[in-house]
Amino acid sequence: MKIAVLPGDGIGTEIVAEAVRVLQALELPIEMESALVGGAAYEAHGHPLPESTLKLAMDADAVLFGAVGDWKYDKLDRPLRPEQAILGLRKHLGLFANFRPAICYPELVGASSLKPELIAGLDILIIRELTGDIYFGQPRGRRTATDGHFPGAEEAFDTMRYSKPEIERIAHVAFQAARKRNKKVTSVDKANVLETFQFWKDVVTEVHAQYPDVELEHMYVDNAAMQLVRAPKKFDVVVTGNMFGDILSDEASMLTGSIGMLPSASLNTKNQGLYEPSHGSAPDIAGKNLANPLATILSAAMMLRFTFNQTEAADRIERAVSSVLASGLRTTDIWSEGTTKVSTRGMGDAVVAAI
Amino acid sequence: MKIAVLPGDGIGTEIVAEAVRVLQALELPIEMESALVGGAAYEAHGHPLPESTLKLAMDADAVLFGAVGDWKYDKLDRPLRPEQAILGLRKHLGLFANFRPAICYPELVGASSLKPELIAGLDILIIRELTGDIYFGQPRGRRTATDGHFPGAEEAFDTMRYSKPEIERIAHVAFQAARKRNKKVTSVDKANVLETFQFWKDVVTEVHAQYPDVELEHMYVDNAAMQLVRAPKKFDVVVTGNMFGDILSDEASMLTGSIGMLPSASLNTKNQGLYEPSHGSAPDIAGKNLANPLATILSAAMMLRFTFNQTEAADRIERAVSSVLASGLRTTDIWSEGTTKVSTRGMGDAVVAAI
Ligand SMILES: CC(C)[C@H](C(=O)O)[C@@H](O)C(=O)O
Ligand SMILES: CC(C)[C@H](C(=O)O)[C@@H](O)C(=O)O
Repeated sequence: MKIAVLPGDGIGTEIVAEAVRVLQALELPIEMESALVGGAAYEAHGHPLPESTLKLAMDADAVLFGAVGDWKYDKLDRPLRPEQAILGLRKHLGLFANFRPAICYPELVGASSLKPELIAGLDILIIRELTGDIYFGQPRGRRTATDGHFPGAEEAFDTMRYSKPEIERIAHVAFQAARKRNKKVTSVDKANVLETFQFWKDVVTEVHAQYPDVELEHMYVDNAAMQLVRAPKKFDVVVTGNMFGDILSDEASMLTGSIGMLPSASLNTKNQGLYEPSHGSAPDIAGKNLANPLATILSAAMMLRFTFNQTEAADRIERAVSSVLASGLRTTDIWSEGTTKVSTRGMGDAVVAAI
Repeated sequence: MKIAVLPGDGIGTEIVAEAVRVLQALELPIEMESALVGGAAYEAHGHPLPESTLKLAMDADAVLFGAVGDWKYDKLDRPLRPEQAILGLRKHLGLFANFRPAICYPELVGASSLKPELIAGLDILIIRELTGDIYFGQPRGRRTATDGHFPGAEEAFDTMRYSKPEIERIAHVAFQAARKRNKKVTSVDKANVLETFQFWKDVVTEVHAQYPDVELEHMYVDNAAMQLVRAPKKFDVVVTGNMFGDILSDEASMLTGSIGMLPSASLNTKNQGLYEPSHGSAPDIAGKNLANPLATILSAAMMLRFTFNQTEAADRIERAVSSVLASGLRTTDIWSEGTTKVSTRGMGDAVVAAI
């Protein structure tokens, strides 16, 4: 079991360190090797995803990723900015299937913006296609407009696209995931406006014929953004494209109030995966031993489950996290009256002790 | 003052009828003429936006629009589906600036999914560009992929695009609107991924130089979807493209809990406008005298204010709506213990009486 450890920027190094300690505590035959990524890699090697980092990731079975980005890189040319490392890893590893659970932890119901009755017990799985859509479509760039409202003016453009096999494989992932859950898939599109998503809807419908035991519902993206607010518990598995998935998965994780707790996985066809917390690099609290490492620790559990098939080890991590939460320990982001505040390191210690 | 009245489908006819009565009660020199649109027009004339309806709209100063759509048209070819009428009107009238206030009515704080302290006093204005972006960009369609992950496979594609003058004019609209409010504009983009929105960000920044009294902040669309949930009151004016605006304006209006109350305006360069409620055609309650006509009545007030410069008449409508709410009258959608339930017609009667 080879893991490439890419802590990245901001709180990335602190939270990944705790997840690494948790993995070590399991005493499994795991090999881990670290490398720089994002702004840290740019500063050391002039590129957010240096060849050596990419090679390490490609040769590993799984990547444990922290977070990248800092305001100080805002002025760099786009290809050099930290987040290009994420896009590069997704592309080169072919990580087409992104799993983003949006779960509301019972202990954290009060931290949600939503009323408790709307959110208690929430457990949605958002499956976002991650290597297609307008993120990678060509052509894109700037040019002189030849039609539209202002022919002759300068314009910028991008291409949205999905091919049939790309939609089929993510649809299979969604239906198979739903089979292990509440057997309902909501496919989010904008078929009333976009050719790409009329096609998406058609292909998902076709694939659904192979899963008669799973219910399929289609929903427009604007309506999905509303229903997540109005009645999030009506969803089970949500499957959508790269762009809509970016927006809806962030909306959903913020709704839970548990964003500091939410892991994610991005898989390719060989079950290689990149595992990272759903939250960002939070440069404002970096280096202060304040960040919540639980989303990263739970991402390590997802790694054991998805890539390494180590169900029992994954369960051990998740049980340890539950017991630590139950014992009242909280990092600042999830602290509330009556619970005990701990540091990043303190939280890591507690999880290691519980294992 | 010439108004084209297009009630449309579902609850459209009922709610527009009340708005028309309110306009009549003002005894202004208004000429109103009605026509079919959406599914109703398809059934009568075989097209959701018949020539005669389009001509009526183009010759009028303003369009009072209800809502279109019904499940029964889902199987029609896309060009014949009801919502194509909206896209056609936007395109042919050049309605590039969409105003969507997201206001939380004090009386309805309890109806929001969000906790009262997060939402009480909320007053955001979302300005969505409405004639560009991936909604109208060419080319689009289906073809055989020549590159990407599956060359040779069938694929569908769309083109996202914005020209400089298109971004400039909507940016001016946003900065000017902010001047009359809290002097803050949040421009929402995805500059970290899309060429179109890097250009958007650059052009908005350029236009901002002419408005030194207004604060400009840039935010990625995924983050905006989160911040609307976490701290909606931090926004004043939000300006964004057609696609992101579709998603964020619906998310924001649902957050308020007041969606049955929220009007909208779509304007062109000549101040011609289309005015419609922010909610949809609600076929499930159509014809039952249950729908809330207030969003449509308030859209008529927006029409008087924006297109006709009849500030006083607009104020009269808005005051009448406030007093009716204060007196405790509620349609089903906003009813709560201790208030008085009224029908669509009953609500219209009350507003007319208050005028
Ligand atoms: C950083 C950015 C390119 C990325 C995305 O848009 O996919 C991020 O928002 C995410 O969701 O992982
Ligand atoms: C009906 C549809 C084409 C339309 C849109 O996407 O613009 C609607 O959602 C809206 O926001 O007015």
